[in-house]
Amino acid sequence: MFTVIGERINTTLKKVKAAVAERDVAYITDDVKKQEAAGATYIDVNAGARIGCEEEDMRWLLSVVQEATTLPLSLDSPDPAILEMAYGLVTKKPLVNSISLEKDRFDPMMNFLKGKECRILALCMDDSGMPGSVDDIFNRAKLLVEKLEGIGMKRDDIFIDPLIQPLSVATGNGVMAMEAVARIMTELKGVHTTGGLSNVSFGLPQRRLVNRNFLAMMMARGFDSAIMDPLDSELMAVLTTGLALKGEDNFCMNYLKGVRAGRIKA
Amino acid sequence: MFTVIGERINTTLKKVKAAVAERDVAYITDDVKKQEAAGATYIDVNAGARIGCEEEDMRWLLSVVQEATTLPLSLDSPDPAILEMAYGLVTKKPLVNSISLEKDRFDPMMNFLKGKECRILALCMDDSGMPGSVDDIFNRAKLLVEKLEGIGMKRDDIFIDPLIQPLSVATGNGVMAMEAVARIMTELKGVHTTGGLSNVSFGLPQRRLVNRNFLAMMMARGFDSAIMDPLDSELMAVLTTGLALKGEDNFCMNYLKGVRAGRIKA
Repeated sequence: MFTVIGERINTTLKKVKAAVAERDVAYITDDVKKQEAAGATYIDVNAGARIGCEEEDMRWLLSVVQEATTLPLSLDSPDPAILEMAYGLVTKKPLVNSISLEKDRFDPMMNFLKGKECRILALCMDDSGMPGSVDDIFNRAKLLVEKLEGIGMKRDDIFIDPLIQPLSVATGNGVMAMEAVARIMTELKGVHTTGGLSNVSFGLPQRRLVNRNFLAMMMARGFDSAIMDPLDSELMAVLTTGLALKGEDNFCMNYLKGVRAGRIKA
Repeated sequence: MFTVIGERINTTLKKVKAAVAERDVAYITDDVKKQEAAGATYIDVNAGARIGCEEEDMRWLLSVVQEATTLPLSLDSPDPAILEMAYGLVTKKPLVNSISLEKDRFDPMMNFLKGKECRILALCMDDSGMPGSVDDIFNRAKLLVEKLEGIGMKRDDIFIDPLIQPLSVATGNGVMAMEAVARIMTELKGVHTTGGLSNVSFGLPQRRLVNRNFLAMMMARGFDSAIMDPLDSELMAVLTTGLALKGEDNFCMNYLKGVRAGRIKA
């Protein structure tokens, strides 16, 4: 099992921003249907890019996206008030994206989450900034899991994001994420790990190749979810192949189905 | 560091068999030079396919290959007598391919290896057949390492082959190899792991995609050598990218060099 958080409905993307500004129902509907057909588990909805319009844009997007799909949504905002509003508008148990250990965000999010029926994406970020080591990531993950379990959340509903950082910034950033994921999946058994894969290749040429190989390597260490573009068919082929190689595809049925459908090509 | 054992000089390949039969020096020379240019660490030489000719073919191949390259050789035969003969003909410290725990092979190989200046590829095979579990592979690896250390071999000279088996035969064969490699690299620290990558995809369509993703996943678990085709540029791109993602390529210099040279493309 791998949870694909489809990242395409995000107003930081130019076309989405324009579609939202123009209240273009057809554009959003079409994109969401394509993500569903390609294998998304959640449709992430981020309405943060148009300054001053996040609440209104999020309301509009939620109604359009829920009309377009039966998939559950990932409600994506740094603002706890927006997340609370959005939570009130969804019809299916959502993934709330996100909480972190930053004080401004942690306290209101914990208040909001109490007793709610949702899953949570928890970032390994605190007020000291991005994590700088495997221990850093693991200790933050552990604290987040303890706190979230303390308000009654189940591990299966917790998605830890180790915060994938660019290789171009530090040579060890890829392996730091891999080691952290392996440790989280072993020592905090039952939680999930996820993250924005493509951050790893920021600043490098031929990024999609780096992203694909990183997905395979992260999967080998236990990574069982990603925030990614389900319409990137080569990346999705890595996912299907990776699950087969991990022994999670009986008789390689999904792999063979993908090959027959022309979705998986060497 | 990753040790690429270039697998192309093998008489089971039709063209190589013909070239050896015709004593075609140009063909062999050209192939070896290409493997060296593409990044091979060792040139594997296997002369086993022409029945009754292995000794004679091996002698000829060794002289031609050593004329063509300064790389060390991997001497590849199931027959200890052929390996001993070949060992006497090489000018650089070779990789001897291979020993296993099968009695017919183990005893003469141990006798031969005593005091020799070589590295050894050790197959996790015994008289009961192929390994059927991670424990099986690990226990065989451990016994091989103990025995080889017992005659004075250093761990850095031991390459353990877990025996990669096809996914099409059992859904768990990929993950079994990954888990075994992780355990060998952790619990037998200092040894190397290697193997014939492409076995994993036997019987599946789009094999090269499976092989590429398997290489990335195995690298994420510690696999630091493979018996592979260095002229498969997409597979070599996975290797370069994988080393960068593992933090083994300072400032991504090799990756960037590969992109600039056109060898690495998304």
